[in-house]
Amino acid sequence: MQKVEELKAGELDARAFIEEEAGKISKIVGGGLAINALSGGVDSSVVTMLGHKALGDRLKTYFIDNALMRKDEPRNIVGIFKKLGVKVEIIDAKKIFLDALRGITDPEEKREAITQTFYKNVFGKLVRKSGARDLLQGTILTDVDETVAGIKRQHNVFEQLGIDPQAAFGYKIIEPLARLRKDGVRKVAAALGLPESVYNRMPFPGPALSARVIGEATPEKIEIVRQATVITEEELASVKAFQYMAILHNDRVTGIRGGKRDYGLQIEIRCWDSIDARNASPTRISYEKLEGLARRMTAEVPGVVSVTYNIATKPPSTMEAV
Amino acid sequence: MQKVEELKAGELDARAFIEEEAGKISKIVGGGLAINALSGGVDSSVVTMLGHKALGDRLKTYFIDNALMRKDEPRNIVGIFKKLGVKVEIIDAKKIFLDALRGITDPEEKREAITQTFYKNVFGKLVRKSGARDLLQGTILTDVDETVAGIKRQHNVFEQLGIDPQAAFGYKIIEPLARLRKDGVRKVAAALGLPESVYNRMPFPGPALSARVIGEATPEKIEIVRQATVITEEELASVKAFQYMAILHNDRVTGIRGGKRDYGLQIEIRCWDSIDARNASPTRISYEKLEGLARRMTAEVPGVVSVTYNIATKPPSTMEAV
Repeated sequence: MQKVEELKAGELDARAFIEEEAGKISKIVGGGLAINALSGGVDSSVVTMLGHKALGDRLKTYFIDNALMRKDEPRNIVGIFKKLGVKVEIIDAKKIFLDALRGITDPEEKREAITQTFYKNVFGKLVRKSGARDLLQGTILTDVDETVAGIKRQHNVFEQLGIDPQAAFGYKIIEPLARLRKDGVRKVAAALGLPESVYNRMPFPGPALSARVIGEATPEKIEIVRQATVITEEELASVKAFQYMAILHNDRVTGIRGGKRDYGLQIEIRCWDSIDARNASPTRISYEKLEGLARRMTAEVPGVVSVTYNIATKPPSTMEAV
Repeated sequence: MQKVEELKAGELDARAFIEEEAGKISKIVGGGLAINALSGGVDSSVVTMLGHKALGDRLKTYFIDNALMRKDEPRNIVGIFKKLGVKVEIIDAKKIFLDALRGITDPEEKREAITQTFYKNVFGKLVRKSGARDLLQGTILTDVDETVAGIKRQHNVFEQLGIDPQAAFGYKIIEPLARLRKDGVRKVAAALGLPESVYNRMPFPGPALSARVIGEATPEKIEIVRQATVITEEELASVKAFQYMAILHNDRVTGIRGGKRDYGLQIEIRCWDSIDARNASPTRISYEKLEGLARRMTAEVPGVVSVTYNIATKPPSTMEAV
């Protein structure tokens, strides 16, 4: 297992880091092509900019629409990069991901289905078709730690797990951010000229909205949690927090609609204060705001009769529920 | 369907009410025996006192230990009534209730199993054995309303549903509190000399802790929610609220224990501000208190990695989740 040396945000010279990592990418890729997938999160956005700086048009960047994105996300993200002179191609892979998730309730199997679909059936095919030998990935040190510790099964840290990605999927992985935590990545993003909407963007999980559905992530449930996510992000936009999210539970709870019993859905809200995602505590949001959020959730999202707010810390909770 | 006229707490003369209802009970029961089940809640406690006042030793009062009670509840309640000169007999029916709940996940079927077990297999037998023809019950007006509206299936309002209890279970039901809401019942309880621990006691559902478990109420899950209930009641004892509760979810969520991934349990806390249970809103408990509660919950209750707090109102939520 490869040992990674942490580069703390406080000690990070972002401009020197950019030069160093862009230089490494140039050296590894040589005169060939590289490829990467942009999710719109700060990690993959920074990697896209580093790769673009090192390789220009020899970096092929794809945005995979896996049907699990937030509302309007593909269009918004591609627009941001277009303004920065970086071309990003959207790949419509909605059906293949939804098919892969059908009938799966276990969180591990869900992540695994998305990983396998992403690498083998979608991105792997793009890589082979593109002729690129090198894949840029936005793995950060927290991903490495948690995967090594067995807390999380990240799909982007094969090397740290001792799996040879060359043999496993047929390409080589370059991880320019593996020494940084989230605060360091944000510093680099700002230095790269990315807009604040990207460098202060909340972390969003790899399995996207399927990680925000407990139990089977059906197209209907993904649509419900997508609506709940819009409301949560609108209502909590003014809150200074590391990350906030809406989670659709599988459990049903009793409610009342139009004076009648209604056995309905529950949405759990989590909003975290954290520096680097290793430890986190619930943000002390005012009840006025929480109640307004709950009111919109039950009024606007079909079937929702109950809303809760997380009050536990990480650990023993994790930030995501799935 | 019998129309019930509301007697509002503000307009209630508790002493006159007691005389009137005790008189009615005497008249209905005549020289015979009556029987009632005491759960320890304010409703059944008031009914026990009214019946005792009317009938003395000709009222037989039973406390059915259904395995779903809070910690130490049978002993505590019988002790309170002993001090008031009222003899209460504890019936150990733990096994029969747990057997009846096995494999049941649907909330309606859960309530039905408890109702049927209570009436047919446990209390019905006691009634027939005792020779009592009359059964006193603590039905209040909110139970009547919600049952008529189809929100809740109460087990104690057969008459209001148009079901003849004489034919259904073989005895006659007397409901002295059917004109009152909870605030009125509390006034009567105080006037009857019941201690504050009874007349200010929180409402507790008929299906007891089985209503605090989402999904199958196994003996293990009941024990978990019993522990969670002790902690919740200790931590929130100083909060001025109508009702608070801990609910064990069936959904599993991801957590971390000893640095390792731990797929664990979630407890939902609900704490309601309400006057009469028809409408309710979450109590604005301080985050300091909520976080202390969550900390104890995850530290002391085996398997719990996540704790949430309800932020929705009734309606569209109900006060209980099951």
